[in-house]
Amino acid sequence: MDQTWTPRPKPERAERLERRIEFADYPATRDFLERLNDLCEAEQRFPDISFGRTYVNLTLRPDGDDVPIGEEEHRFAAAIDALTTP
Amino acid sequence: MDQTWTPRPKPERAERLERRIEFADYPATRDFLERLNDLCEAEQRFPDISFGRTYVNLTLRPDGDDVPIGEEEHRFAAAIDALTTP
Repeated sequence: MDQTWTPRPKPERAERLERRIEFADYPATRDFLERLNDLCEAEQRFPDISFGRTYVNLTLRPDGDDVPIGEEEHRFAAAIDALTTP
Repeated sequence: MDQTWTPRPKPERAERLERRIEFADYPATRDFLERLNDLCEAEQRFPDISFGRTYVNLTLRPDGDDVPIGEEEHRFAAAIDALTTP
C-alpha cells in the first residue's frame, strides 16, 4: 500500500524525493510522526510533511537552490524508511 | 504574517477552510503541533496538516461528502486559533 520514494520532476534530474506512507489508524500515524520528529531534530533536517488521519506524505529537498538530489538525501530517505518498521 | 481562515473554493459555498500559520523556528512549530495533536485526539477530528520547519498549513473539511462548511467547522477552527496563543 506504500509507495517507494519517487524522484521529481524527473529521475534523471531529481530536485526532490517524495514518498507516501499509509497507516492503519491515527495512533500508528502519530507514532511514526513522533519517531520522524526525533530523527529530524537529531539531524536538523526538516522535510515538508503532510499528514491526515492515516497517511503521511514526505518531500525531501537538498539544502540550497539548484542542487540536485544526492547521496545525502538518499541516506536521509533510507533513515526515514527505517522508522516505518518499529 | 499569518493568514486567517480562508473558505475554499468560494466563500458562498465553502467546502473547506484553510489557514497558514508561521512560526519563528522549529521548536515553536513543534509546540503548536503538539497542542494541535492533543486537540485532534480529544475531538477525534483529523484535519489535513502540512508543515515544514517554520510553517503549518491546515485544511478543515466537514464530515461527509457534499456537506458545506458549517458552524461545527468554524467552532473547530476557532479552537485551533486558540492554540496559537499559548
